[in-house]
Amino acid sequence: MPDRLIVPVILSGGAGTRLWPLSTPARPKQFHALTGSLTMLQMTAARAADAERFAAPIVVASGAHADEVERQLAEVGARPGTLVLEPVGRNTAAAIALAALAAEADDLLLVMPSDHVIGRADRFQAAVDAAAVHAAQGWLMTFGIAPDRPETGYGYIKRGDTLGEAAWAVERFVEKPDLATATAYVAAGSYAWNGGIFLFRAGDLLAGLDRHAPDILADVRSAFGSAAREGGRIAPGPEAFAAVRSQSIDHALMEVHDRVGVVPVEMDWSDVGSWDALYDVGDKDAAGNSLSGDVHTLDTASCLVHSSGPKVVTVGVSDLIVVATGDTLLVLPRGQSQRVKDAVEALKRAGEPS
Amino acid sequence: MPDRLIVPVILSGGAGTRLWPLSTPARPKQFHALTGSLTMLQMTAARAADAERFAAPIVVASGAHADEVERQLAEVGARPGTLVLEPVGRNTAAAIALAALAAEADDLLLVMPSDHVIGRADRFQAAVDAAAVHAAQGWLMTFGIAPDRPETGYGYIKRGDTLGEAAWAVERFVEKPDLATATAYVAAGSYAWNGGIFLFRAGDLLAGLDRHAPDILADVRSAFGSAAREGGRIAPGPEAFAAVRSQSIDHALMEVHDRVGVVPVEMDWSDVGSWDALYDVGDKDAAGNSLSGDVHTLDTASCLVHSSGPKVVTVGVSDLIVVATGDTLLVLPRGQSQRVKDAVEALKRAGEPS
Repeated sequence: MPDRLIVPVILSGGAGTRLWPLSTPARPKQFHALTGSLTMLQMTAARAADAERFAAPIVVASGAHADEVERQLAEVGARPGTLVLEPVGRNTAAAIALAALAAEADDLLLVMPSDHVIGRADRFQAAVDAAAVHAAQGWLMTFGIAPDRPETGYGYIKRGDTLGEAAWAVERFVEKPDLATATAYVAAGSYAWNGGIFLFRAGDLLAGLDRHAPDILADVRSAFGSAAREGGRIAPGPEAFAAVRSQSIDHALMEVHDRVGVVPVEMDWSDVGSWDALYDVGDKDAAGNSLSGDVHTLDTASCLVHSSGPKVVTVGVSDLIVVATGDTLLVLPRGQSQRVKDAVEALKRAGEPS
Repeated sequence: MPDRLIVPVILSGGAGTRLWPLSTPARPKQFHALTGSLTMLQMTAARAADAERFAAPIVVASGAHADEVERQLAEVGARPGTLVLEPVGRNTAAAIALAALAAEADDLLLVMPSDHVIGRADRFQAAVDAAAVHAAQGWLMTFGIAPDRPETGYGYIKRGDTLGEAAWAVERFVEKPDLATATAYVAAGSYAWNGGIFLFRAGDLLAGLDRHAPDILADVRSAFGSAAREGGRIAPGPEAFAAVRSQSIDHALMEVHDRVGVVPVEMDWSDVGSWDALYDVGDKDAAGNSLSGDVHTLDTASCLVHSSGPKVVTVGVSDLIVVATGDTLLVLPRGQSQRVKDAVEALKRAGEPS
């Protein structure tokens, strides 16, 4: 265990449509309780709430969600930390740079997306401990999710030389592979999914950006320097932040930096990136249904039925995904939830609000 | 064409659950626009709106629906008629007796359920003309729906001797048959469905009831005599009307009376008694979908999707029934809509409001 408390950095900038109609730009995935009674943001905060190991969090979120973030964190008793409010989204390099500027240079930052689930919190904590050792020595540490299938939707991390303590130097990052390549990666055993979780010292992150993406860091510094501050809220100016180049931390830094490490970990991780993924991680009834909300089934099997409002009644159906919000209803077969984005696009083309 | 105007009698007492969740006791089927822009009640009124042939209607409805009936009829410009308000439902013998008492003895009454669709109005009108000739001679006339399938959900009427003018004496009424019997009926050609549409003189109906169901008539007379009247509304007293024996006009009179006739008619009739029946009568898109409301389909075929509120999006499904109201959603396969009542029963057992 590190001497210094680790500072959780929770990235709440996502606004994906893959869980439409529940997830919308106004209320994206992380603000919903998808797998239990807590929202994904709340579960993320709870994962780093142990006051003996973690400091109060730095949350980087859209300015539009400031009140919602504070409300949800207060609901689970999270310690008041720092809330950095992005006027617009500028991808993860800028978001993480903001967090690093809000921290002290020697702070160890545990960067976590706010919309993932981790079934085995104990293994995650052990991996954090293992990574902290190397982060304290200047390494930018990633966490490699042990792959259980040849997923083509994620980037992969190939490990190289061992660093000891269950950690390796990263040999290279790989973009989303095709199926044959992904299958070979899984068979090889030395590849892991890049889950976008990181641990490093704030100063090391900033130094890395200064070397590999100095324009991003300079512009973020400028926006941060002129930010409005009120209580724990830091709000960079809209014009200054809008000028920042939009790039992922992977491209801007991790893939090109020389001291990047990885701790592989099997922790029942999911990014819940689709309704099918939610079905996979959810509890099932005896008939294999994953049910949530005011849902009543009769002779229904292997369905995901999620309601955040209306009463939903299914009779005599199987292998369907049924999602009901207060004003929208989606029905599609299980296994086809990647088509949700097609539906959202079609609605947009038809001029429909989604 | 009869010399005297025919008085339409519209029975709006139904409160079926077979079209749940759209149809509910608070707002049953006849008050919904299921097949077009008009509600079924409005379509029924429009069917007998020709002022050269029809007088203003007598509507028999639940007291709870008085305002809704008047609002819907006014919306289609129906002439103000008589609205008989039942404090409780006591089946069709009592409802029709109320209408007959509200009319004059020599009035020809065309009794129509308010929740059927008739595609060929011209044929219906011709059948009414044919029936009127015999009704004016004291016959209680029924309309026999030419069967296009061995339906086991309806009663059948077997015709006997011809009365001339496309009408026959009824040989007998048959309760809902089993499939083999129904198949034989359809093959025989002398059977028709009993659609619950009647034409007779008010006085003949009352005389028939006086002979075959004198208790019902006496109790209805008593309730009618003490009814509260205001404008066109007649409201029998709750206690008096509750005392009336509940029986259908078929059992109470038609099946036992000696001068009952039938005019068979092919008029694209449906009682829209299920979501499957609604699919059958509805317009279809190129993929065989019957869609109504704020509905968007992608790669969807042979589905009935009916929304009276929420936006509904379907992707990659076929042969489903999807019904969305403001607070409830039903999903089941086409061909299984008789199971809707099972779902409603299950919800009731679970203590859920339906």
